[in-house]
Amino acid sequence: MKKLSEYTIQVTQAIKNMGLGERKPGSLYAPIEYAMNAGGKRLRPGLTLMSAEAFGGAPEQAMPAALGLEMFHNFTLLHDDVMDHSDTRRGRQTVHIKWDENTAILSGDTMLSLAEELMMRVPDDKLRRVLEIFNRMSIEVYEGQALDMEFETRDDVAVTEYIEMVRLKTGALLGACAEIGAVIGGASAESSACMREYGEMLGIAFQIEDDWLDTFGTAEIFGKPIGGDINNAKKTFLLSTGLAADNADAEALRAAIALPAGDLRVRTVTRIYDKMGLSQKCREAIAHYSSKALEAVKRSGLPETAVEPFKVMLDKLTGRKN
Amino acid sequence: MKKLSEYTIQVTQAIKNMGLGERKPGSLYAPIEYAMNAGGKRLRPGLTLMSAEAFGGAPEQAMPAALGLEMFHNFTLLHDDVMDHSDTRRGRQTVHIKWDENTAILSGDTMLSLAEELMMRVPDDKLRRVLEIFNRMSIEVYEGQALDMEFETRDDVAVTEYIEMVRLKTGALLGACAEIGAVIGGASAESSACMREYGEMLGIAFQIEDDWLDTFGTAEIFGKPIGGDINNAKKTFLLSTGLAADNADAEALRAAIALPAGDLRVRTVTRIYDKMGLSQKCREAIAHYSSKALEAVKRSGLPETAVEPFKVMLDKLTGRKN
Repeated sequence: MKKLSEYTIQVTQAIKNMGLGERKPGSLYAPIEYAMNAGGKRLRPGLTLMSAEAFGGAPEQAMPAALGLEMFHNFTLLHDDVMDHSDTRRGRQTVHIKWDENTAILSGDTMLSLAEELMMRVPDDKLRRVLEIFNRMSIEVYEGQALDMEFETRDDVAVTEYIEMVRLKTGALLGACAEIGAVIGGASAESSACMREYGEMLGIAFQIEDDWLDTFGTAEIFGKPIGGDINNAKKTFLLSTGLAADNADAEALRAAIALPAGDLRVRTVTRIYDKMGLSQKCREAIAHYSSKALEAVKRSGLPETAVEPFKVMLDKLTGRKN
Repeated sequence: MKKLSEYTIQVTQAIKNMGLGERKPGSLYAPIEYAMNAGGKRLRPGLTLMSAEAFGGAPEQAMPAALGLEMFHNFTLLHDDVMDHSDTRRGRQTVHIKWDENTAILSGDTMLSLAEELMMRVPDDKLRRVLEIFNRMSIEVYEGQALDMEFETRDDVAVTEYIEMVRLKTGALLGACAEIGAVIGGASAESSACMREYGEMLGIAFQIEDDWLDTFGTAEIFGKPIGGDINNAKKTFLLSTGLAADNADAEALRAAIALPAGDLRVRTVTRIYDKMGLSQKCREAIAHYSSKALEAVKRSGLPETAVEPFKVMLDKLTGRKN
C-alpha cells in the first residue's frame, strides 16, 4: 500500500494541470488558481485516492472527485476567511485582502460549482450516489459552521453539542472523502459507510488535537501563535468541557475567559485548564475518537495491509509520532 | 395551454410546502425561508414548468428542478445584495441587513447546495444531462457577474461585450430553465437546445428592456426610481452604445456621465441619449432579440398552440401590451 504522501504529490501536480489560470474572465479565475495553489497538506484529496485504491480502484479514476473535494475545501476556506476577517492563510494574503471581498465571495461561489462539475466525472452507475454524498456533506459543513457561529454568543455549550458541531464542520468532509473514494473504488454500501465513519471520527479527533495544540502546543509545531482560541473565547473542547463542570474551577474559568484578551487571559485560563486536568481529558477524547475511527476502517472488511495507511494517517493527524 | 401565471401560482405554493423554516439550525435556514418567500415573479420556475408541459411532461415531474432553479436565482440575489451593499429588495430588508453579512454569505452557499439537491430529483436517465446544464449555467452566471464588475472600471465597453455579459448574467439562467424543463418533458436534444436559445434571447431582450425602463420608464411601471443606472454610471446598453459612437455626442456623453451623481447628471445624460436616438436603438435591439427568441421556440418543433404561451411571456417581459 502507498502512503498518504505519495497520493498528495499526485494531487498537487493534478491541480497545477487544471489550467485554472487560463480561464476567462481572469478577475474570476485568478483568485481561484491562487487559492488552489496555496499549498496545504492535501489531506482530503489524498484520503479520497487512498480510499479508492484500497478498494481496488485506480487512483486516476478518483482524481476528478479528489480535486472536487479539495476545491470544495478551499471554497469553504475562502468564504470563512471573509467571515472571520482573516488577513493571512498559509503565510500569504487571503483572497479578500489580495483582491477584495466581492471577488472572494464570487470566486468562492464559482469554486463550489466547479467542484460539482468535478464530482460528476464518475461513471453513470456511481453518479447519483457520489453526488448525494457530496451535497449532503456540503450542507452538513454549512450547518456546522452556523452552529459554530451560534456558539460564539452562548456560554452554555454542552460537550455533546461541541462534538456534533465538529462532526459537521470538520468530520463530514473527511467522511465524504473516504466514502466517495470507496464508492469509486468499488466498495459495497456497507464498506463505504464504514469508511465515512472512519473519516468523521478522524475529523473529530483531528479537531480536538487542534484545540489541544492551540493551548498546550508550541508555535513551532502548531504553525501559528499559541492561545488564539483562548483570546477569542472560542468554544473549544477545552472550554466547553471546563465550563460544564459544576464547581468552583468552572466559575474561575468563566471569570478568566472574560478577562481582556492578552497574555494574562491566556496564562490564567491555561492554569485553570491544567488544574482541572483538561489537557489529559483532551488526550483521552482524542484516543477515544481515534479508536472509533480505527474500528470503523477495520469493520469495512479491508485486509490488514490495506488498513495500515489509514492507521498511519490517523496517528499522524492526532499527534502520535511514527 | 396554460399561461405562465398558472404555473407561478403552483410554484409559490410549492415553496411554502418546502418546510425551510423548520430545518435546524434556524440561524442558517430562517434567512433562506425569508429569501425564498419574498415574492417575486417566479418567472424562472414558471418557465421551467411551462417548458416541461409543452413537451408532454407533467408539471409535477419538473417541480423539484423548477424549485432548484428558483433557489439558485435567489442565492445569486442574496450574494449580489451583499456585493452591491443593497439595503432593500422587493420592499423588504435584504438578508445581510436583517441578519448580517456572514449569515448572508453562509445561507447563500447553502442555497446553492440545496439547489443542487433539488436538481437531482429527476429520473436516472436525465440526471447527468440536467446537472450538466445546471452547473454550466451556474458558472456562466458567475462569469457574467465578474464581467459586469470588470466593466465598472472600464469606459470602453463595446456593445458586443455588453451583450455577451448580459447573455451570461441574465440569459443563461432563463435558457437553463427552458432547456431543463424541455429535457424533463421529454424533448429531443435538438428541441431542448432551441428552448435554451429561446431563454437566452428572452433574457437579453428582458435586460435591455430593463435598461430602457431605468432611463425612459416611469417609477410606477419600473417599480423603483428612474435614473439609477445613470447615477451609477452603469455600462448599460444605452451607455455602451452611446460611448461607442465616434462623434461629438459621444464626447458630450463622456463628460455628462462624469458629472456628480444627481438630477443634473440624469437629466443631461438622458437629453444626450434622446439626441442620439438611443431610446429607438434600444427598442430595435429588444425587437431583434425578441424575434430571435420567437424563431428559436418555433424551430423547437412545438405545435403553434404550444408556442403561444412562450410568445405571451416574451411580449410581457419586453413591455408589449397584450
